[in-house]
Amino acid sequence: MSESDIQIEERFLSDWSGLKIGRPCEVHRPRTTEEVSELVRRCRDEGLSITVQGGMTGVAGGAVPSEGDVVINLERMNAIEDVDALEGVMQVQAGATLQQVQEAATAAGWMFAVDLGARGSCHIGGNAATNAGGIRVIRYGTMRDSVLGVEAVLPDGSVVSSLTRLVKNSTGFDPRFLFVGTEGTLGIITRLTLRLHPPMGQAAAAWVVASEFEALPRLLRSLKRTLGSALCAFEFMSGRYVRTACRLTGAKAPVQVEGAWHVLIEAAGTAGQPMEEALHEALTHAIETGELDDCAVAASEAHREAFWRIREAIPEVLTHLKPAATLDIGLPWARTGEYLKAVDAELHARLPEAEHLFLGHLGDNNLHLISGPVDEAGVHVVDEIAYRALRGCGGTVSAEHGVGRLKKAYLSVSRSPGEIELMRRLKQALDPTSVLNPGRIID
Amino acid sequence: MSESDIQIEERFLSDWSGLKIGRPCEVHRPRTTEEVSELVRRCRDEGLSITVQGGMTGVAGGAVPSEGDVVINLERMNAIEDVDALEGVMQVQAGATLQQVQEAATAAGWMFAVDLGARGSCHIGGNAATNAGGIRVIRYGTMRDSVLGVEAVLPDGSVVSSLTRLVKNSTGFDPRFLFVGTEGTLGIITRLTLRLHPPMGQAAAAWVVASEFEALPRLLRSLKRTLGSALCAFEFMSGRYVRTACRLTGAKAPVQVEGAWHVLIEAAGTAGQPMEEALHEALTHAIETGELDDCAVAASEAHREAFWRIREAIPEVLTHLKPAATLDIGLPWARTGEYLKAVDAELHARLPEAEHLFLGHLGDNNLHLISGPVDEAGVHVVDEIAYRALRGCGGTVSAEHGVGRLKKAYLSVSRSPGEIELMRRLKQALDPTSVLNPGRIID
Ligand SMILES: Cc1cc2nc3c(=O)[nH]c(=O)nc-3n(C[C@H](O)[C@H](O)[C@H](O)COP(=O)(O)OP(=O)(O)OC[C@H]3O[C@@H](n4cnc5c(N)ncnc54)[C@H](O)[C@@H]3O)c2cc1C
Ligand SMILES: Cc1cc2nc3c(=O)[nH]c(=O)nc-3n(C[C@H](O)[C@H](O)[C@H](O)COP(=O)(O)OP(=O)(O)OC[C@H]3O[C@@H](n4cnc5c(N)ncnc54)[C@H](O)[C@@H]3O)c2cc1C
Repeated sequence: MSESDIQIEERFLSDWSGLKIGRPCEVHRPRTTEEVSELVRRCRDEGLSITVQGGMTGVAGGAVPSEGDVVINLERMNAIEDVDALEGVMQVQAGATLQQVQEAATAAGWMFAVDLGARGSCHIGGNAATNAGGIRVIRYGTMRDSVLGVEAVLPDGSVVSSLTRLVKNSTGFDPRFLFVGTEGTLGIITRLTLRLHPPMGQAAAAWVVASEFEALPRLLRSLKRTLGSALCAFEFMSGRYVRTACRLTGAKAPVQVEGAWHVLIEAAGTAGQPMEEALHEALTHAIETGELDDCAVAASEAHREAFWRIREAIPEVLTHLKPAATLDIGLPWARTGEYLKAVDAELHARLPEAEHLFLGHLGDNNLHLISGPVDEAGVHVVDEIAYRALRGCGGTVSAEHGVGRLKKAYLSVSRSPGEIELMRRLKQALDPTSVLNPGRIID
Repeated sequence: MSESDIQIEERFLSDWSGLKIGRPCEVHRPRTTEEVSELVRRCRDEGLSITVQGGMTGVAGGAVPSEGDVVINLERMNAIEDVDALEGVMQVQAGATLQQVQEAATAAGWMFAVDLGARGSCHIGGNAATNAGGIRVIRYGTMRDSVLGVEAVLPDGSVVSSLTRLVKNSTGFDPRFLFVGTEGTLGIITRLTLRLHPPMGQAAAAWVVASEFEALPRLLRSLKRTLGSALCAFEFMSGRYVRTACRLTGAKAPVQVEGAWHVLIEAAGTAGQPMEEALHEALTHAIETGELDDCAVAASEAHREAFWRIREAIPEVLTHLKPAATLDIGLPWARTGEYLKAVDAELHARLPEAEHLFLGHLGDNNLHLISGPVDEAGVHVVDEIAYRALRGCGGTVSAEHGVGRLKKAYLSVSRSPGEIELMRRLKQALDPTSVLNPGRIID
């Protein structure tokens, strides 16, 4: 392991404000499951700690090594090994990027349903380890719903091969659930079998505005009934987020109303099925009953893209509000309105100089908060306010980004003592010396 | 515990051909999680074995006690505790019947998606413990996809409460996956939070016939594209099954062709959306290209029910072929045709006096085989032939019924040595003295 190899790794790990980046003692990019297995076995025998790395796009600090760690990066295990174009099933190595997986699915006449902004860099193994969500969860679920089987190296170096391609298999414990969403603490994912979907048809998009947040869950409930699974996005944004995003990108809000809450709605059927009319009809009722202040259906693809430009202005917003706190909480629909009011008021009272912008995927119970500019103490204040208000709400401190190193202190907001104890018992049973990703999720 | 109480239990446990029914030393019907917890703790301390019982409709022998077992039956914990009619989420106790859950969902304007013939007797906790499938998996998935959270009593008597109502929660290991599908070997499920769906629209049904099995996966692939998630059933039956079912029920096959393979197809949209035309169009193409021999779309609800009458004649078929072997295997689409040919030929050669009938849910990779009449040795021959042919196919010995006590000997057909070893390690970690459901799945 040369000095320069380690330097190269550090390039990727910039900007971990608040988190100390350790200097790894070794960085490995194995090519086979057997190599991973041998590495893990040696680390365990020598008492070394391993940091597992996928595409390093994660935002919870899980791929950031501690001083003296052995880094295992999966990037060389990136083969698309098999595509069953008849049934729509794919087998891949964990280091393939999400985009590679998507492209291979498309080339075979299918679609891989999970999609997110980091697609070009994040690994499919990292997506699985964090149970990534993304922009189509309302229709296709999270990574967990797209993973059929898994091969993983356990903390003792043994290999569990569970690369089933079946939708149903009722023969005992299903190993994929030990590794999907556990952020590399119970095993290193080396291969996955994935479920593909038929390609989606062209999407129709609408932009609606409401003055009361409470109108949004009611609208979503009604759209689920009228559009069924054609509903593929229900992205809400606070008026403040929309105004900031428009100012920074030069975009114009599709609806000229000083609305408190905006929603970008999308519907898509099967290939070749137009959806504009169905979407329009579905929204008419809500307009007529006075639930919504205004509504615009995108008249063209350019129009639709302009809608998304506003929703996806997060990088510009983050740059503008830097340094910012970004939260990824989850809570039931029925509690979201009151939560937003209370947290917004407290944030403005305690941090009056900063902007506090809310947006999220309501269908996935997922709410993002961007607060900035705030210094390190300010980040702490935001966390305290937002997480404290979650207690008793049935909420979670992370809907999709994971706990990693950054949210451990708040795990008890989302998890009961029994759940945390169970996680400890599983970790203890599979990794008694804590060789794999120590210090993530639980200590 | 009086003698008569134990007698009552035995009534339910009739007809376990081949499996010795033990006499339990105690039978309990607790009313609270705390009572379950205390019972489990006492059994562990006193070295007693527990058999967990739901509605006792399971077909793998999992609810059948061994001699001297303590039986814990959940039937008194049957409350529907909460329905969130806004978001479509329900919290129930594990002993509620599937039908109770379905009715409570319907009353709240929603639908509970899992459905199966035993709905009036089976418990929602038993459905979860076996990860039950049923007739709508192609559209809504198995029980696992309808369970959001779980409360369970571990083998040491401690309670894990993970009754989340969120679609997305990325804060570490998700306890529901330890209990869903593990047939009571890792914990007793006491409560569940369930995801509801908007009610389905009126279904349209078609009956098609093909001479080659290979036409069926191609048809299914094409219907998934044209009908999308409106496709809600794709139930195939061998010509022999259809002829036997028609003879026994007096029904007439909808299509007068001596076809080798029949399929009952159903499509349903959102409420109020007619589907006949879409289904007809989707099938026309397959007829034109010569893939299908014939096709009939049900012209009325009575017509549609008559189609299902044939598919659901299994009880009559089983009575007629008694004693019969019934298998519940799973395998990839691409392997199903050759598998059927080989197994059918071998069954007829080895057991020429018996009938061998195939049917299944192709969309779920699930194939049922009914062979009878066969004596105990004959059952063994059927198992050997059908399971041996699965090896190397990526198949499973149980797609939905579970392993229980009856399929343990064939677990290695479906699971790799690493998977079996992992199951043992989990069992050992959570239940070192094997107090809960010993002798199920693995020994
Ligand atoms: C622009 C952008 C947009 C994003 N959008 C979303 C979004 O919409 N939804 C969402 O959920 N997330 C989103 N994320 C977060 C992130 O992209 C995802 O969590 C992604 O899934 C992480 O994958 P990765 O390969 O980069 O993992 P890494 O960052 O390398 O690792 C993440 C964690 O997983 C572990 N890990 C990685 N690979 C493996 C493996 N093979 N086996 C075991 N453990 C492993 C690591 O140890 C670490 O704990 C976004 C990030 C960016 C930068
Ligand atoms: C007519 C008929 C039709 C059927 N159709 C289908 C079908 O289409 N699809 C399908 O998948 N199955 C089907 N089955 C099988 C069976 O109904 C299902 O598996 C059902 O889910 C079992 O539920 P139960 O409450 O009766 O469980 P039981 O039979 O009582 O128990 C089954 C197993 O689960 C365990 N268990 C039960 N309750 C709990 C609990 N609360 N916590 C932990 N462990 C528990 C038991 O110990 C046992 O190992 C059918 C059965 C019948 C009789």
